[in-house]
Amino acid sequence: MNVTIRGRTRHYRTVTFDVGKNSVLLLEQRLLPHEFKTVAARDHRETAQAIHDMVVRGAPAIAATAAYGLAQGARAFRGNALRQFARHVRRVYETIKAARPTAVDPVNAMDQVLAPMSAGANVQEQRALALAAAEEFANRSVEECRAIGQHGVKLLKNGMRVLTHCNAGWLACVDVGTATAPLYAAQALGRRFHVFCSETRPRCQGASLTAWELAQQGISHQVIADNAAGHLMQRGEIDLVIVGSDRVLGRTGEVANKIGTYTKAVVARRHGIPFYVAIPLSTIDWTLKAGLDIPIEERDESEVLGVWGVVRSPKSKVQSPKSARRAYVRVANPTSHACNPGFDVTPPELITGIITPMGIFKPTQLWRRRNDLGFAG
Amino acid sequence: MNVTIRGRTRHYRTVTFDVGKNSVLLLEQRLLPHEFKTVAARDHRETAQAIHDMVVRGAPAIAATAAYGLAQGARAFRGNALRQFARHVRRVYETIKAARPTAVDPVNAMDQVLAPMSAGANVQEQRALALAAAEEFANRSVEECRAIGQHGVKLLKNGMRVLTHCNAGWLACVDVGTATAPLYAAQALGRRFHVFCSETRPRCQGASLTAWELAQQGISHQVIADNAAGHLMQRGEIDLVIVGSDRVLGRTGEVANKIGTYTKAVVARRHGIPFYVAIPLSTIDWTLKAGLDIPIEERDESEVLGVWGVVRSPKSKVQSPKSARRAYVRVANPTSHACNPGFDVTPPELITGIITPMGIFKPTQLWRRRNDLGFAG
Repeated sequence: MNVTIRGRTRHYRTVTFDVGKNSVLLLEQRLLPHEFKTVAARDHRETAQAIHDMVVRGAPAIAATAAYGLAQGARAFRGNALRQFARHVRRVYETIKAARPTAVDPVNAMDQVLAPMSAGANVQEQRALALAAAEEFANRSVEECRAIGQHGVKLLKNGMRVLTHCNAGWLACVDVGTATAPLYAAQALGRRFHVFCSETRPRCQGASLTAWELAQQGISHQVIADNAAGHLMQRGEIDLVIVGSDRVLGRTGEVANKIGTYTKAVVARRHGIPFYVAIPLSTIDWTLKAGLDIPIEERDESEVLGVWGVVRSPKSKVQSPKSARRAYVRVANPTSHACNPGFDVTPPELITGIITPMGIFKPTQLWRRRNDLGFAG
Repeated sequence: MNVTIRGRTRHYRTVTFDVGKNSVLLLEQRLLPHEFKTVAARDHRETAQAIHDMVVRGAPAIAATAAYGLAQGARAFRGNALRQFARHVRRVYETIKAARPTAVDPVNAMDQVLAPMSAGANVQEQRALALAAAEEFANRSVEECRAIGQHGVKLLKNGMRVLTHCNAGWLACVDVGTATAPLYAAQALGRRFHVFCSETRPRCQGASLTAWELAQQGISHQVIADNAAGHLMQRGEIDLVIVGSDRVLGRTGEVANKIGTYTKAVVARRHGIPFYVAIPLSTIDWTLKAGLDIPIEERDESEVLGVWGVVRSPKSKVQSPKSARRAYVRVANPTSHACNPGFDVTPPELITGIITPMGIFKPTQLWRRRNDLGFAG
């Protein structure tokens, strides 16, 4: 999407490839929203490290990063021996896979690079095919997000107030985003609407990343405490909810997403507010048979016991002080501990529809429509 | 309650009176949980200021502070002219009332000092009666909390996991607390249980104050993000919810409380988890006829856009560093704004019972039992 920094507007993807320098270029997302900076991962190890350290995050974004990283590793190979090359590529694959062991997306993405690559007759050709496949993966990922936008935009009427949770925006993808795609599509059509970004404790991606995205695109929005969403729904101040997902079970329609999603779905149902989940096809898990089988990551307690931000006066009007210093502040009682589940699972009966690149489906329709939705089983 | 600081245990109330120095002694709650300190308000103006600045907070606690502040002001009068004395007391009353203009509790408390005071034959007697009435008010407030504990303890079985929201503990009262009273009573009976303190964004009173209280009393507890409560309920990890309230409508059974309470009540109902509200009698509003008439305070957006804490390393094991520096960190995008409703209203059908000093009632029973519950209308 377009980013305007000090009056200068440029288009960015979260991840691109510098062919000349054989480098993966990433937005340094850990500094957002307080600083905008791109970084170059100069070899596949640095790319793996960037995934591990969450320089880049969000399932579709780390998928494309892994695809580029595999091509980057392949292109760094010196020599013509195909067997040595294949062993080298396998090592690159394993290094990148290990960077985020619980995520399935980087592995799927790298498999989509490996397959076309192997058609090359020699190392030279395979290296070229790897890069072409990685570029194609990234472009297809953007096209999927655009298609989500075209289907989802039908839900967004003029004057609506939309709630989203966490960041399922373009920062989590290569471009455009999943939950944000219908918003950007509606904006392009000139529709007026307002977005509530729930802050999304403990990591606050709603307050930091989604609010930054929407501000950059000039979309009317406000940050709210996660606690305020139910109250706003009760008072009739939210018309539509759109969130992303980390994993949708194709067999049951259950949706795993950032902690707090389930709560919002329960309250939305009580007030008859439509609740949609926007996903690319790679987010559908056709294997698992029950939501309870989805592993719920228990994250470090320091995330709940405190928060990262930039030290400043609460009343300061300075938007991005040069002296901005990122700091962690402890909020909770010093001797207390926390329990920090990272995700929750929302059952299909609370979900109005799943917005996919192929159209909007009831969660329980996914399995019946599995052939259209890319099920390879 | 007992507080142990550096191995030394002492009993504290949130507010007491130093007769010799005619001072109101308060816990400096803005420094908790990172620093424990008492402060003296040396005249009624300082007492009003302490209420205004939230040195002391929580409806029952500021009620007692106001009662003491009125006695303090009366006792500072020099002379024997009863009419001048009455004018002086009226000025003290107005100064303290103005400290927290939306709260009804300080006014009610001061009225309970004024009435017995006026029975005094001269200035000397009235001054003495004022202090006695303030002491009686504070003691009665503690007794009400103890009675809440005795009724509420029946709900707390061995092994239960209890969720509470915000701080309705002894720090919000003179002693014992409202929502915490059943917990402390159960502990005294040797029952074992675990408490989840929901962090309570934006001001984080659950993570800071309630967690500190429970740690001080040695009660097993964990802090959770507000987002995690629904997930824990869904997984069967919460057996009981007890919260406090800022205002319960006696005519309808609706409960106003800290933002996020409503959401938790909705999800608790979905999972059949009992949801209780613990209150002293002064929290019942017999006048208002509908929850929608309760004014919902819209608080400063800086609370949502950032957070106060103590700067330290996220992995630091140092509990209370001498160098602890309170700081505000901005978390949200610098150009974004927030919407910050401070309270929400939970309808009676989501509330299993109201725990009062007179027993546990269904919310819709309050009006029928109004004579027992101190309705003076």
